[in-house]
Amino acid sequence: MDLATFDPSSRLAATTTLETLETPCLVLDADRMDRNITRLRNRLDSLGVSLRPHLKTAKSTDVARRIMSAPEGPATVSTLKEAEQFATDGVRDMIYAVGIAPEKLARVVELRAKGVDLVVVLDTVEQAEAVAAASRKAGMRIPAMIEIDCDGHRSGVVPNNHAQLLEIGKVLAAGAELRGVLTHAGDSYRGGGDEAQHHYAQAERLAVVEAAQLLRGAGLPCPVVSVGSTPTAHHAKDLTGVTEVRAGVFVFFDLVMAGIGICHVDDIALSVLATVIGHQREKGWIITDGGWMSLSRDRGTGKQAVDQGYGLVCDIDGSAYQDIIVADANQEHGIIAVRPGSDARLPDLAIGDRVRILPNHACAAAAQHEAYHVVRSRSHAVEACWPRFGGW
Amino acid sequence: MDLATFDPSSRLAATTTLETLETPCLVLDADRMDRNITRLRNRLDSLGVSLRPHLKTAKSTDVARRIMSAPEGPATVSTLKEAEQFATDGVRDMIYAVGIAPEKLARVVELRAKGVDLVVVLDTVEQAEAVAAASRKAGMRIPAMIEIDCDGHRSGVVPNNHAQLLEIGKVLAAGAELRGVLTHAGDSYRGGGDEAQHHYAQAERLAVVEAAQLLRGAGLPCPVVSVGSTPTAHHAKDLTGVTEVRAGVFVFFDLVMAGIGICHVDDIALSVLATVIGHQREKGWIITDGGWMSLSRDRGTGKQAVDQGYGLVCDIDGSAYQDIIVADANQEHGIIAVRPGSDARLPDLAIGDRVRILPNHACAAAAQHEAYHVVRSRSHAVEACWPRFGGW
Repeated sequence: MDLATFDPSSRLAATTTLETLETPCLVLDADRMDRNITRLRNRLDSLGVSLRPHLKTAKSTDVARRIMSAPEGPATVSTLKEAEQFATDGVRDMIYAVGIAPEKLARVVELRAKGVDLVVVLDTVEQAEAVAAASRKAGMRIPAMIEIDCDGHRSGVVPNNHAQLLEIGKVLAAGAELRGVLTHAGDSYRGGGDEAQHHYAQAERLAVVEAAQLLRGAGLPCPVVSVGSTPTAHHAKDLTGVTEVRAGVFVFFDLVMAGIGICHVDDIALSVLATVIGHQREKGWIITDGGWMSLSRDRGTGKQAVDQGYGLVCDIDGSAYQDIIVADANQEHGIIAVRPGSDARLPDLAIGDRVRILPNHACAAAAQHEAYHVVRSRSHAVEACWPRFGGW
Repeated sequence: MDLATFDPSSRLAATTTLETLETPCLVLDADRMDRNITRLRNRLDSLGVSLRPHLKTAKSTDVARRIMSAPEGPATVSTLKEAEQFATDGVRDMIYAVGIAPEKLARVVELRAKGVDLVVVLDTVEQAEAVAAASRKAGMRIPAMIEIDCDGHRSGVVPNNHAQLLEIGKVLAAGAELRGVLTHAGDSYRGGGDEAQHHYAQAERLAVVEAAQLLRGAGLPCPVVSVGSTPTAHHAKDLTGVTEVRAGVFVFFDLVMAGIGICHVDDIALSVLATVIGHQREKGWIITDGGWMSLSRDRGTGKQAVDQGYGLVCDIDGSAYQDIIVADANQEHGIIAVRPGSDARLPDLAIGDRVRILPNHACAAAAQHEAYHVVRSRSHAVEACWPRFGGW
């Protein structure tokens, strides 16, 4: 893998290492990332479906090009800012997978007019009518997918609400473009083991396949049948009727995914590099400059069997210390301690020593940073700096 | 108050209103902010101490100039990036209030060489020796303050560890510059009412005043005696011996501060503007585009008497709905619901309607955004766009 060139605006020199980076900062292990990508791609190839990666985790064109099957996509995005940025960088096939607000349609039209096949998502008749009205006004049929609620988790039409599904479908087919149906098995993040995940994956598949059948039975088109969550993508045994799978966090993985058994801790490609800035020896604390501003406030493992605090602490090579976590965090201070109940010992770290912290939630931790500092496994050489973006 | 000019790089036009902003975005009520600033300034004036505002909350020069007593400072920062950015914008007197890592001293020296009086903070002999070594190397005495641990909350020398305090003081006085002592009553964020806050404020004061006496008694200089937290700044009755107060979140306030009685909900100057994008009527949910990416993952009220979820929901004018909160959040979805146990009714909001969400924690929510959209109370006109920055 070619890790490409350094960001010219960065402070990085060609000799930058994990010892010389300014901390806190985000480190990406490209070998682990490649392994994660290959694993899911092979899995979906064997199931005969295509991957439409969700780029909300990475928000980086350098990462996106490694996940997507082609530079043009397909891809999934969570904001119009992502759609606009990735379009600038050549992506031509995207689903904006958050229910569309009518006033955002002007930006959708603008991108579509530039040749980007951007598809919106909705779950109400009001939104479908707004898409039809915007289509009329723009003189183009804006494609939309109907979101299905496969598990009561968040948004979407409940699968047995046939009347609403058909009404939305008819409004879109008449005045815009009905591109298909889409769902997200949000409940799969709760875990529960392989059997539960097989169940979530099957429920996710059936919800959209049956919705597609209903629409087609009424003479409506439904070319795309889209499912997606990282846990179900790694557990589905049968994707008959599904045309594509969306997944995002699989590219980096994180402690939440490890906590529900979707990956191992040493698959996690993302870490926050931090420097020791103090000790409170009587309390068993090591203080670092890796606070919640760099780790995010995400406490996603707080309700899991193993609570990882604000993150699991690794040495500078990326090997996790046994039971050493960021037990608490202030804005720019992280408090490293032994996990409660463990008889592990604190590592012997001096002021100025560095650690790497695996995050609870890759999407949230990455969002706190402006760039990925890219290394290979077991190497300290920073081979590239990949910018990332935020905003809406 | 002159709200200054629009950021030229922004999408904003002079006719921008709360109805036309792209959502989600950050809204700042300048009238509330002014009131909050005046309140603390009057209080500290009456106590005869100066305010050294902590700029980590705002990370904006437009806001900083309204909080600081002069364009040159004094001010407090939490990162060297803040120090560098504010120095570029004319601030000349700053404390970097996070324990110094030795390898960060090169950037400190660089700023000091430009005429910025940047002071570092430390609590170990190793750090003092590193500051002395860097001072020798740079041919300048780098000023440092000794952090005192007034409540076991995080960092600092325990007040009764006289030996360590004196040793650090001697190393600094001999090889660098001993500027003074500093503490932060982190425990005050737990609340407990006025009496508890008076106690926290007194403990905070005594910790540094006694440390200063110890140093002076040993013939060491200690010109600056610095305390600081928003709760104690609003409760201290006597600041004898203290030369300055640091506080940050007071400028905007937030639900955590309201939850411990430091402000009222209608003092909170910061909100996230979001748009309704769906309904799940059977569940009593309204879905908006204000997810945790715009609100942050901070759940600071989760352990308070009143759990505000991911934020308290207001109408577009900024008036809070009774018991309507963001009950759950995904990356770009917020789920609005009635607070559990309340008999309030969901407001009647249609797709496309807008709400303003008061955040748990102003520092964390603001950090998710690139700009403040500035309005007056009860006005929808966006009078300015103030950029903010992040990073280290």
